[in-house]
Formats: sequence, structure tokens, C-alpha cells
Amino acid sequence: MTSHTVRVALPGDRGADRSYDIAVGQGVLATVGPRLIAAGATRAVVIADAAVAESHGRRVRESLDAAGLETLAVDVASGEGSKAASELVRLWVALSEAAVDRKTHIVAVGGGVIGDLAGFVAATYVRGLGVWHVPTTLVAQVDSAIGGKTGINLPTGKNLVGAFWQPRGVFSDIDTLATLPTREFLSGLAEVVKYGVIRDEAFFDWLEQHQADIVAADAQALHHIILVSSRHKAEVVSQDEHETSGLRAILNYGHTFAHAFESATGYGHFLHGEAVSLGMAAAARLACRLGRIAPALVERQDRLLANLGLPIDFVAVARDLKTDDLLAIMRRDKKAISGKLRFVLPTRLGHVELVDGIEPQTVADVLEGNA
Amino acid sequence: MTSHTVRVALPGDRGADRSYDIAVGQGVLATVGPRLIAAGATRAVVIADAAVAESHGRRVRESLDAAGLETLAVDVASGEGSKAASELVRLWVALSEAAVDRKTHIVAVGGGVIGDLAGFVAATYVRGLGVWHVPTTLVAQVDSAIGGKTGINLPTGKNLVGAFWQPRGVFSDIDTLATLPTREFLSGLAEVVKYGVIRDEAFFDWLEQHQADIVAADAQALHHIILVSSRHKAEVVSQDEHETSGLRAILNYGHTFAHAFESATGYGHFLHGEAVSLGMAAAARLACRLGRIAPALVERQDRLLANLGLPIDFVAVARDLKTDDLLAIMRRDKKAISGKLRFVLPTRLGHVELVDGIEPQTVADVLEGNA
Repeated sequence: MTSHTVRVALPGDRGADRSYDIAVGQGVLATVGPRLIAAGATRAVVIADAAVAESHGRRVRESLDAAGLETLAVDVASGEGSKAASELVRLWVALSEAAVDRKTHIVAVGGGVIGDLAGFVAATYVRGLGVWHVPTTLVAQVDSAIGGKTGINLPTGKNLVGAFWQPRGVFSDIDTLATLPTREFLSGLAEVVKYGVIRDEAFFDWLEQHQADIVAADAQALHHIILVSSRHKAEVVSQDEHETSGLRAILNYGHTFAHAFESATGYGHFLHGEAVSLGMAAAARLACRLGRIAPALVERQDRLLANLGLPIDFVAVARDLKTDDLLAIMRRDKKAISGKLRFVLPTRLGHVELVDGIEPQTVADVLEGNA
Repeated sequence: MTSHTVRVALPGDRGADRSYDIAVGQGVLATVGPRLIAAGATRAVVIADAAVAESHGRRVRESLDAAGLETLAVDVASGEGSKAASELVRLWVALSEAAVDRKTHIVAVGGGVIGDLAGFVAATYVRGLGVWHVPTTLVAQVDSAIGGKTGINLPTGKNLVGAFWQPRGVFSDIDTLATLPTREFLSGLAEVVKYGVIRDEAFFDWLEQHQADIVAADAQALHHIILVSSRHKAEVVSQDEHETSGLRAILNYGHTFAHAFESATGYGHFLHGEAVSLGMAAAARLACRLGRIAPALVERQDRLLANLGLPIDFVAVARDLKTDDLLAIMRRDKKAISGKLRFVLPTRLGHVELVDGIEPQTVADVLEGNA
């Protein structure tokens, strides 16, 4: 199978082009070394999730070695717990002990946790090192590895600390998905469905027609969904890199509810994509309750999500939690301004809008199944 | 006395102007509140050096309160020890407990340590908050508060972690210098003399002619040196914000030696400006040894620095340290590339160049007084 390239177009910084390529395909891991050499790197620090350090991480290091780069490997324990200040400081010290200079680039191998952590390390060490993402989970390939959001959690909240730091390139190798646990693979599909709902009716249709191939992890189907998802993410990021115009906010469809479900259940109960699936189901119901979409679209989205093995019964989830607690969490959302409730809601399949000032009682009705 | 404004011109980010003003004069602290209101802030977190929290910090908070901003105060212990990861994490958590959102701005009140630390907190909390600098030391007013360099130290080295994060504005109130210990005040003059040597022969002349007024901390003389220094720093930063073209590197005149003296003696033995003065004396001698300038200029710079109460006898300092150790430190400098020695050296008064590939033995000769 061939590989494809998606360009993330960004404004330059005084002559230096910041645009970058996402390589999507089978075997693109082997191209990491030559790409870093072409970008002027002389050394590379491979920061890998310990779970894939000896599989995908080793293949990346072999590519770097073969290209003639001096390579250092630092492994990070799997799981959200590594996205913490203590791990950040450990990596900073590891780089300083390796006498890293500005010709050294960081290569992040793993899922969203590794990409966010290693990206933030790259953003802040000697005021900025080049970073390359090698996402090895579906959710990282279709979403988190693209767009330059980096950061860590605090005990007081998720993603409270971070920086915008665009990678120099992204390598989405479909072969890496073969080793992904099924539940983790399926959870990545929530963000894929999201692109259909927020921007691309034809893609939503395609997903409906290829449900079986997707769930079976057919290589051609995976290639297509990663490529289309990457294009959508790249286009949105190109137009609103720093989330200033409001456009990038459409990517948060389902996420205000999702964060509340994740936070109220304690992170780790749901995978992020599962929470996003529940959140999209709730957001569609809210949009319907507000008269923005017809019930048929709510059901159509529910059906696709369910057929892809994703949870949609947010009412059952909310029943175990307190509605007031969920509302309080939503009011504390990082994107909330002065405590007002704000949601990204569809107006039709393939189009969403940012809607401000929604009554808490309306949201409570939706969560309690009274909508 | 009136106040003056120096503009730091920067390229915009998608329509948002990033340029900012430095207000220089007596009483500019009282203008902090109205300026933040004009910039759209609704809350302010004042991060102040504990030594000035109840004097200058309180005046800043009063200005913010009077302008109608909700204000929170966080004090930081004086000294370089606060520029550390532990303090960074403490401030991140303090902001999260205060439920800081993107309409909250940071106001940093103190010297270089506070500006670097609070600036880095602002750069990284919720991926970036507005920050305003209220420098209360001479070295911060003429140098560190301008230009967006922020960061912390690691146990393994100084300023290894950080980000470029431009402030929204700088308030250099000359009144704050009245309470500065004499030694700290005088050390700030090293960076002032530096601007004369690297960019401005007429300013160097002026400094020679007004030595007595400067050392006596005459308000008009201070106003002039802060204003001229701010203009030089602003011009260089405008032309090379991220240190990519090499221009900004001229600000490191004397600093490669200075860092070696500071590191070898343990930070805290010399004030930064004292080390810079020694470093400039050594750099001028090196330039002379390389035939780039005449001995008369070395002596002229030595005389001005000494008359301003600054140390110049770098040979005596180096005698107590090992030349090899000093050279090893210089080779590890963050700006070194692949271990080569590189210095900013004058070619005439008011002009410097970046000189690569200097023989370690030549540097050793200079340090040992054999040049």
C-alpha cells in the first residue's frame, strides 16, 4: 500500500516555514530517520511509551541509527499518570544530563499521553527543540498528534499546563495499530465520527457504509479514515492555530460533556474516546431539545457510534453521577468564560456552531433523559 | 518628571498585535491598573518578590484594585533559588486553585528571577496567559524584563527550561530603584555599558561624561540610561525575536565569560552584572589579542566599568579557578554548537560581531593574563 501526505499549512516565523507534513500509510516508521536528517537534526532523543518502546520505538531508533543520527532513548510508563509535573521534570533533567543542544530533536512514540508530554518537554527545553510525533494509537493518529497542543495535568485538573508547539512532522503508521487492544482501537473511532458530524456529511455516509470493514480493522479502511481525519484536523488547525478565532473550538464537539463524564468518574474509568462518544450522544440530544436538529439525526449518530462499538447511553452514566456535580464541572471548563455554559452543537449533519449561554436546567433535562 | 514610552515592535499573530509598550518614568506603577483594564483583563494575579511585596507590590495591587480588577497576590521568596521547578509547580497549582481563566493576567513585580519565573508560568498556564512586567531592579528594567525570555533553572544548569513569551507591557518605575541595595544597583550598570559597546558610541561617551550622576542615582540620569537601554533592547528584540538570525546574540557580549565565572564560583558569589562586567573586560582583552581592537579601547571600557563601581580584574578571578574548568563550562554553553567556542567581540566602539571557532589556548592566555 502506498503512503499519503497531508500538509498542515501554517504561517512562517520570519522566513522559517512552520508548515509540516503528516505521513499516513504502512511502513512510514522507516522514513523517520531520513526526514530528521533532511531537517538538519544531528541527534535524536526518542521518548517512547514503555509499552511500545521495544516494538515501534525500536523500529524508530533503527531508522534513526541507519540514517546516521546519534540516538538516545528515554521510556515513559504507560498511562495518564505520566502526564504529570514530576515526569516533566525527570525528562528535563534527562535531557540536560545528555547535554542536549538545539540540533537535537525529540521523537515521541506512543499515544496521546506521550505526545502531549514529550511535545511539552520539546516546547520548553532550551526554549524549544524540534519535535516529531510517531502516534501509535488511533486517537493520536486522527487527533492528538496533529495541531501542536502539548501539556500536562495538575492534581487540580487536566491539561491545565501546556503550550502550543507544532511538530516538525507526524508519522502515522497503520501497522502500529495492529497491536492496539480492541477497546482502545474502537475508542479512537469516536473522534473519526466527530469529523463527519462537524464538517463532512459525505464522510459520515462513508463510515456508515464501511462499518464492518472499520471494526475489522481492514487496512484500506483504516488508511482512508486516518487520511480523511488528518485532513480535517490539519485544515482546522491551519485556520485557527491558537484557538483565537473560535473555529478550532468546533473540534470540541461532545467534549464539554465528555470532560464532565471523565472527571466525575475519575479519569481512567472511560477511555477518552468512549467519553467523547457519550458526549456526542448527549450534545446531539441537547441540540435536538433546542430545536436545532431533528430527532432522526440524533438516532442516526447514535446508531453509527453503537455499531462501531462505542457507548452512547449517557443517561445511564449520568444516573450514577449527580447532575449538579456534572454541571459544576462543565462550568469550570478551561474554555468557559466567566462560568457560562457553552457547547458546540450541530445544526445539520456536517455543520456545527458554538452556542453560548445555555440554561443549566436544559442541560440537566438532557442528562436526566427528560429531553 | 514625565514618563516616556518605548515600543517593542513585533509581528502580529493572525490579526492580534503582539507589539507592546515599555513605560519609563517616575510614578508609572500607578498606571498598571488602567492599562490592564484597557487590555481586557478582568482579574490579575500579582506574583511579587517577597522583599518588595509590601512596598512596590502593594502599590501595584492598589492600582489594580482602584481600576476595578479582582486581584490575587502570590509572593515568591527572594533569590535565584526560586527559579526552580518546585516553585513553578507551586505557582501552577496556586493558579488552578484560584480558578484562573484566560481573562486573568499575570503581573510580575520584582527583579530578573521573578520576571523569568512568572513569565514562564504565564507562558504555560492554560497554554498562555497575558503577562505584564513591573521590574524593580535596574538590571530587570534595562534588560531582563524586555524581550520575552522566560524560564527556570535545573539542578544541572541555569535557564535550561523556558519559553519565549512576550509581555503585554512593561512598567519601569524609577522610584522603585531608590530602595535597591547599592551593590545590586551598580551591578545593573554593566548591561547599560554593554549597550554602548555593542551598538551606541554616543551613549558610551554620555556614560563617561555622567559617571558621577549615575553612581549618585540622580533621577534624570537614571531616566536617560533606562530609556536608552530599553530602546536598544527593544530594537534588537524586534529584529530577532527568537534568536534565529544571530542579531540577538550580540546581547550576549561578555556573557560567555560571565556564565563561566558564575558557574565556576557557584551562583550567588557574583551578582550577574558583576560577572558581566568581568566578562566584558575579558572579551575586550580577547578581541584585542585577536587584533580586532586597539588596547586603548580595552582600557577605556575598563575605566568606565571601574568608575561605575564594577569589577574588572578577571585575571585575579580566573587565578582562583582552573582555566580548564572555565573552558569546559564555556564549551557547554547553551548557545554553543557542537562544542565550539564562540564569542561576541567588538571591532570598534559601538559595533560587535559573532566570532566562531576561537582556539581554547587563546582564551586560556587571556584568562591567565598572558594577552
